[in-house]
Amino acid sequence: MAKTAPSVGIIMGSQSDWDTMRHAASTLDELGVPHEVRIVSAHRTPKRLYSYAQSAKKRGLKAIIAGAGGAAHLPGMTASMTTLPVLGVPVESQALKGLDSLLSIVQMPAGVPVGTLAIGKAGAINAALLAAAVVALADKRLDKRLEAWREARTAAVAEKPIMDAPSPR
Amino acid sequence: MAKTAPSVGIIMGSQSDWDTMRHAASTLDELGVPHEVRIVSAHRTPKRLYSYAQSAKKRGLKAIIAGAGGAAHLPGMTASMTTLPVLGVPVESQALKGLDSLLSIVQMPAGVPVGTLAIGKAGAINAALLAAAVVALADKRLDKRLEAWREARTAAVAEKPIMDAPSPR
Amino acid sequence: MAKTAPSVGIIMGSQSDWDTMRHAASTLDELGVPHEVRIVSAHRTPKRLYSYAQSAKKRGLKAIIAGAGGAAHLPGMTASMTTLPVLGVPVESQALKGLDSLLSIVQMPAGVPVGTLAIGKAGAINAALLAAAVVALADKRLDKRLEAWREARTAAVAEKPIMDAPSPR
Amino acid sequence: MAKTAPSVGIIMGSQSDWDTMRHAASTLDELGVPHEVRIVSAHRTPKRLYSYAQSAKKRGLKAIIAGAGGAAHLPGMTASMTTLPVLGVPVESQALKGLDSLLSIVQMPAGVPVGTLAIGKAGAINAALLAAAVVALADKRLDKRLEAWREARTAAVAEKPIMDAPSPR
Amino acid sequence: MAKTAPSVGIIMGSQSDWDTMRHAASTLDELGVPHEVRIVSAHRTPKRLYSYAQSAKKRGLKAIIAGAGGAAHLPGMTASMTTLPVLGVPVESQALKGLDSLLSIVQMPAGVPVGTLAIGKAGAINAALLAAAVVALADKRLDKRLEAWREARTAAVAEKPIMDAPSPR
Amino acid sequence: MAKTAPSVGIIMGSQSDWDTMRHAASTLDELGVPHEVRIVSAHRTPKRLYSYAQSAKKRGLKAIIAGAGGAAHLPGMTASMTTLPVLGVPVESQALKGLDSLLSIVQMPAGVPVGTLAIGKAGAINAALLAAAVVALADKRLDKRLEAWREARTAAVAEKPIMDAPSPR
Amino acid sequence: MAKTAPSVGIIMGSQSDWDTMRHAASTLDELGVPHEVRIVSAHRTPKRLYSYAQSAKKRGLKAIIAGAGGAAHLPGMTASMTTLPVLGVPVESQALKGLDSLLSIVQMPAGVPVGTLAIGKAGAINAALLAAAVVALADKRLDKRLEAWREARTAAVAEKPIMDAPSPR
Amino acid sequence: MAKTAPSVGIIMGSQSDWDTMRHAASTLDELGVPHEVRIVSAHRTPKRLYSYAQSAKKRGLKAIIAGAGGAAHLPGMTASMTTLPVLGVPVESQALKGLDSLLSIVQMPAGVPVGTLAIGKAGAINAALLAAAVVALADKRLDKRLEAWREARTAAVAEKPIMDAPSPR
Repeated sequence: MAKTAPSVGIIMGSQSDWDTMRHAASTLDELGVPHEVRIVSAHRTPKRLYSYAQSAKKRGLKAIIAGAGGAAHLPGMTASMTTLPVLGVPVESQALKGLDSLLSIVQMPAGVPVGTLAIGKAGAINAALLAAAVVALADKRLDKRLEAWREARTAAVAEKPIMDAPSPR
Repeated sequence: MAKTAPSVGIIMGSQSDWDTMRHAASTLDELGVPHEVRIVSAHRTPKRLYSYAQSAKKRGLKAIIAGAGGAAHLPGMTASMTTLPVLGVPVESQALKGLDSLLSIVQMPAGVPVGTLAIGKAGAINAALLAAAVVALADKRLDKRLEAWREARTAAVAEKPIMDAPSPR
Repeated sequence: MAKTAPSVGIIMGSQSDWDTMRHAASTLDELGVPHEVRIVSAHRTPKRLYSYAQSAKKRGLKAIIAGAGGAAHLPGMTASMTTLPVLGVPVESQALKGLDSLLSIVQMPAGVPVGTLAIGKAGAINAALLAAAVVALADKRLDKRLEAWREARTAAVAEKPIMDAPSPR
Repeated sequence: MAKTAPSVGIIMGSQSDWDTMRHAASTLDELGVPHEVRIVSAHRTPKRLYSYAQSAKKRGLKAIIAGAGGAAHLPGMTASMTTLPVLGVPVESQALKGLDSLLSIVQMPAGVPVGTLAIGKAGAINAALLAAAVVALADKRLDKRLEAWREARTAAVAEKPIMDAPSPR
Repeated sequence: MAKTAPSVGIIMGSQSDWDTMRHAASTLDELGVPHEVRIVSAHRTPKRLYSYAQSAKKRGLKAIIAGAGGAAHLPGMTASMTTLPVLGVPVESQALKGLDSLLSIVQMPAGVPVGTLAIGKAGAINAALLAAAVVALADKRLDKRLEAWREARTAAVAEKPIMDAPSPR
Repeated sequence: MAKTAPSVGIIMGSQSDWDTMRHAASTLDELGVPHEVRIVSAHRTPKRLYSYAQSAKKRGLKAIIAGAGGAAHLPGMTASMTTLPVLGVPVESQALKGLDSLLSIVQMPAGVPVGTLAIGKAGAINAALLAAAVVALADKRLDKRLEAWREARTAAVAEKPIMDAPSPR
Repeated sequence: MAKTAPSVGIIMGSQSDWDTMRHAASTLDELGVPHEVRIVSAHRTPKRLYSYAQSAKKRGLKAIIAGAGGAAHLPGMTASMTTLPVLGVPVESQALKGLDSLLSIVQMPAGVPVGTLAIGKAGAINAALLAAAVVALADKRLDKRLEAWREARTAAVAEKPIMDAPSPR
Repeated sequence: MAKTAPSVGIIMGSQSDWDTMRHAASTLDELGVPHEVRIVSAHRTPKRLYSYAQSAKKRGLKAIIAGAGGAAHLPGMTASMTTLPVLGVPVESQALKGLDSLLSIVQMPAGVPVGTLAIGKAGAINAALLAAAVVALADKRLDKRLEAWREARTAAVAEKPIMDAPSPR
C-alpha cells in the first residue's frame, strides 16, 4: 500500500474479525485505494477509538470502514465522533449468525449515520466498493478503475457457459 | 431523595427514554435507594459519557443503570469505561419492538459485561431491584426493605380473589 | 432549494414512502444540500429507473438515497446501474415492520454495495446526513455546516434539565 | 431436452445458485417439460435481465423460474418486466439461512406477483412442479405425466416398511 | 361474476379471512376473470376441502387461490389433492403478524408446490394477478387486459406530481 | 361450576393473564367440564406453586392448564412437579408479541413435557379442548359432548352464506 | 411391543423424520406403553391420513403423536379429524432449524388443538411422556412406572459428582 | 479455590451446560474469587433448587450465576427465591441457537430480576466478571485485581501487530 497517505481507514474490534475484514482490504488493493488497517475496540480501547476517530479527518481519510460482531458498537461509536462517512460491516457471530451484529450497527438513532453493508464477507467487499465510490468522486482515475472493475464482473457473467444442453441430471 | 450521596446512577440516551426509565427511578424511590438521573448519550455526547463513567466509582456509585433503544450502545460503552456493575435496559423501539435494543445490549463480547433486563417497563423496574440487591449486600437495612418489598408482592397475590365460583363466562 | 444543480437524488417507489422519505429531504434542506426528489419504482417503472441511474453521474449527482419497503429492490437495482454511492432506507412495512425491507436492502451480494440506514424516519434522516458527509468531502462550507449541525445536537442534550431533584414518582 | 422450444425458463443470479436450481431442471426433465437454463443477474447484468424478461413471452415461454439468495431481486425484477407467471426460489444464504432470500422474494408489493416456493432444494423441485402444472393446463399429455409422477410418490410412501414390529430402541 | 364457468377458485378458512381475500376477488373482477369464492376450512371441514380439491380440475378451474392465517394448512392441503396450480395467501395473524402464516404456507416439502404471495392485502391482489397470468396463457384477450392493467399502473406513477419544488419541510 | 370436584385446573401467573385465560374457562364451561381457576405465580409464589402441583393428582385433577407471558416459567415448573398432563398457553406479551412466551413454554428439555398451544385466545380455547379430550377418555358422555361441539362448528361453517354471487367489490 | 393393542399411535410424514421420532418410540418402550408407528403423509397420502385419524378412537388409541417438519401440517390435520388428544413434534428443518415446523404446528386456530412439544429429539421424548401421562390416568401401574421414570432422572442428577474441588481451568 | 467460603455460586441445569459454564468458573479463578459449582435443575430437582436458593444468602454468597438452555427456567426460578443478585447465562441450544434460552431468561416480569449476559461462552465469562464486580464493591483487593484484569486486556490489544504494511491479500 506504499507511501501514499491512506484515504480509507479499516478498523475492527479484534483480531478474529480480520478473517472477514481482510476482504475489504484486498478489494481496496484491487482498486488501488490506499488504506490503513487498525485494531481499535470500542469496548476494550475506547480512548484509542476516540483519538482515531477525532484525528481521522485531519489525517486525510475520506471514509472509515468499521467491522464488528455481536453487540457491535464500533461503527456507531466511530460515527459519533467524526462527520466522515462511516461504513459498518456486521461480522457473522457464533450463535445468532450476525443478526445481532446487523441490528446493532444499522439501527442507529437519527443524527449519527452508519452506512451498513451485508453480514460477513460480501459486506466487507461492498464496504470497500462503497468507500472507493466515495473517494472516486474527487479522483477520476479511481472512478474509471471502479467502473472497469464492475464491467469486468459483468463480463465474467457473460462468459460463463450456459448449462442447458445437454440438460444436467 | 434528599442530600445523601447517590449510590445508583440512572442514565439514558434521550429524553424520550424517560417514559421507560422513570420506572427504575420510582422503584429505587420505593426502596429508599438514593440515586441520580442523567441524560448521557453514547452517540451525541460521547465525552460526557466518558467523564461520567470514569468518575462514577470515585463518586461513590455502586451500580449504573443505562437505558437505550435501537442500536443501543450506552450500556456497553459505559461498561467499557468502568468496572462498576452496569445494568442495561432495552427500551422498546418503534419498528422492531426492542429486539434490536435487546440484542445490542446483551450480546456483549467477553470482557465487558452488561447485566441485561427485560425490554421496557418491566426491565426498568427490575434493573432498580437488581441495583438495590447489589447495594443491599453492604446495607442490612436496605436488604430488609428489599425483602419486605418482595414479600408484599407475594402477599398481594395471595390476597387476590380466586375466580372460580361462580365460573366466568 | 433553488436553481443550484442537485448533488443528491432522493428516490422512492411510491407516494406512500414519502411520509418516511420527506425526513431525508428536510434534513438536506437544513444542511443546505441541493437535492431532487423523484418517484421511481423498480417494479412498476423499471425503464425510468434505468435511465435515472444511468444518467445520475453525468447530471452531477454525488449520491443517491433510495427508500423502499417490503421486498425492497429499488436501492439495490439502482446500485447495480451506477457506481455512485447509493444509500438505502428501509421503509417500515405493514406486517413485518420493516424487517423484510431491511434484509432486502442490506443483504446485497458482493459487487453491488448499498449503504443501508435504520428502518423508517431515523434512517431517512441519517441517509441525508451520510449523503451530506459524502458531498462535504469536496465542499468545505458544507463540512462546517455539517459539524455545526452535529454540535447543535450535542448542545441540545447539554441544555436539557436534569431530572433527579426532586425525584419523580 | 432436444430441439423442442423451451416452455419454461430457469434463471439464476450466479453459478453458485446452480447447486440448488439444478433440482428444478432435473424435475422438469423427469416430467418431460422442455426448458432452458440461463445465468442472468439482476445486479450484475441488468440489461441482460431486461432483454430476457421482455422477450420471454414472444419466445414461447409459459413460465419463468428464478432463483436467488440474500437480497434476492431477480424474481421480482423479472416479474416487473413480463406478465408471464414468475416463480421464485429462495436460495439458502450463508448467514441468515435463506430467511433474507425468502422475504426479499415473497414480500412483493401489490401489482407485481412472484409465486414463491420453499427455501432451497424443495423449493426448486416445487417450482418445477408448479411450472409444469401451468404448462399442463394446455397439454393433456403432460397433465397425465404430472398426475402419474404424483401417484408414484404416493405409492412410494405406501410401499415403505412399517416400523413397529419389533419396536426400535 | 355472471354465468361463465369460473376459471379461478378463491377459498379461505373462515369468514374473517374475507377482509384480506376480497382483494383477490376484486382484482379478478377488474381483470374480468370469472371466479368463485368458498369458505372451506382445512381443519373444520376437511371433507369439504377434499371434495372441493378433487373436483376442481373437472369443473374447469385453472388455478386455486387459498388464503389462511396462523398454522395455515389450507393452501398446502389443497395442493396435496390436486395438480392444479395452487396459490397461497398468508393472512396477517394477531400475534406474529403473518410470519407464522407465511412459513406454514411457503415451506412445503418437495412434491407438493404452493406458489406463495406476500402477507395480507398485497398478497391477495398478487395471487389474483398470478392466477390471471396463468389463465391468460390460453386466453389472448385476457392477456391483453392483463398487460393493459399493468401499463395503467406504470402510467399512474408517471403522472404523479414530482415533489421537489418547493422542497417540503 | 358447582359441587363436582374439578377435573381440570387452570392456573396463571397474574390477574392480567385472565383476559386470555378466561377463554379456557368458558370453553370448559361450554363442554361441562368441572374446573378450578387459581392465580399461582412461579416467580412470586413459588411455594404455592409447589403445593398446588404436588397435590393436584391426589385432588383428582386430570390435567392442568397453565398460562403465562414473557419469560413464562409457570407451565414448565408445574410440569416439573407433577406427572399429570400439563398444557401451556403462551400469553401475548407487550414487546415481543408472545414469541418469548411461546419459546419459554415449548422448548422444554427432555424429561419434563408441556403440551403447548397457540399464543393468546386461540391457545386458551384449545387448551380447554385438549384437556377435555384427555378427561373424555374415561367419560363417554363428555366424549359425546366434545364431538357434538366439534360438529356444531363444522355445521356453522356449512351454513355460512357463500360469497360469490354477486361478486363483492 | 408385543400383542397388546397399541394405546398410542406415532405417525410421521416421511422416513427421514424417523431419526427424530424414534426417540418417542423408544421412550414409550421404556415406559411399557404399547404403541404403533406409521408413515402417514398429510400431503402425499391424504386419504391414508383420513382413514387413520377417523379410525383411531375405535381402534383403542388414547393419543396420537405426529411429527413433521417445514410447513408441518400432519399434526393439525390429524387433530382436525379426531377428538383424541394429538401431540405435535416439530422436526428440525434444514434452513430454518425447525422454527417453521414449530409455528406450523403450534399456531392452530381455535377449535382444533395440537399439544406441541419442543423442536427435535427433546420434543419426541416429551411427546411420549405426555402421551404416557394421558394413558396413565386410567392405568395405575403405568402411572407408577411414569413416576419411577421421573424419580430415576432426579436421582441421576443427585448422584453426579460436584465439580468445584479442585476448580477446573 | 481452597478453604475460603465461596462468595459466588455457579449453578447449571445439566452436565452438558458445563462446557459453557466452565468459562465462568475459570474467569472467577483468574480473578481469585472463591466460588462453588453445583448441578441444580429447575425441572428435575426443583426441591434442591429451593433449598439452594433459600440458603444462599445465609451461606455467605454474594451473587449466583445460573446457566441454562432452551426453555431456560433456572435463572428466573432462582431469582424468585432469593434477593441476592442473580445473573443468567443463556446456553446455546441445538435448534434455535440460544434465542430461546435468551428470551426465557431475560424477559422476566417486573419484580424478579435476572441480569442476563450474552449467549454462550462470552456470557459465561461476563457473568463471572459482573459477579466479581459485585463482590469487589466490598473488597478493595479484588477491585484492584479486576481493574488489572481489564487493563491487561486493553494492553493486549495495544501490543498486537498492526496489519497494514505490507497490505495482506
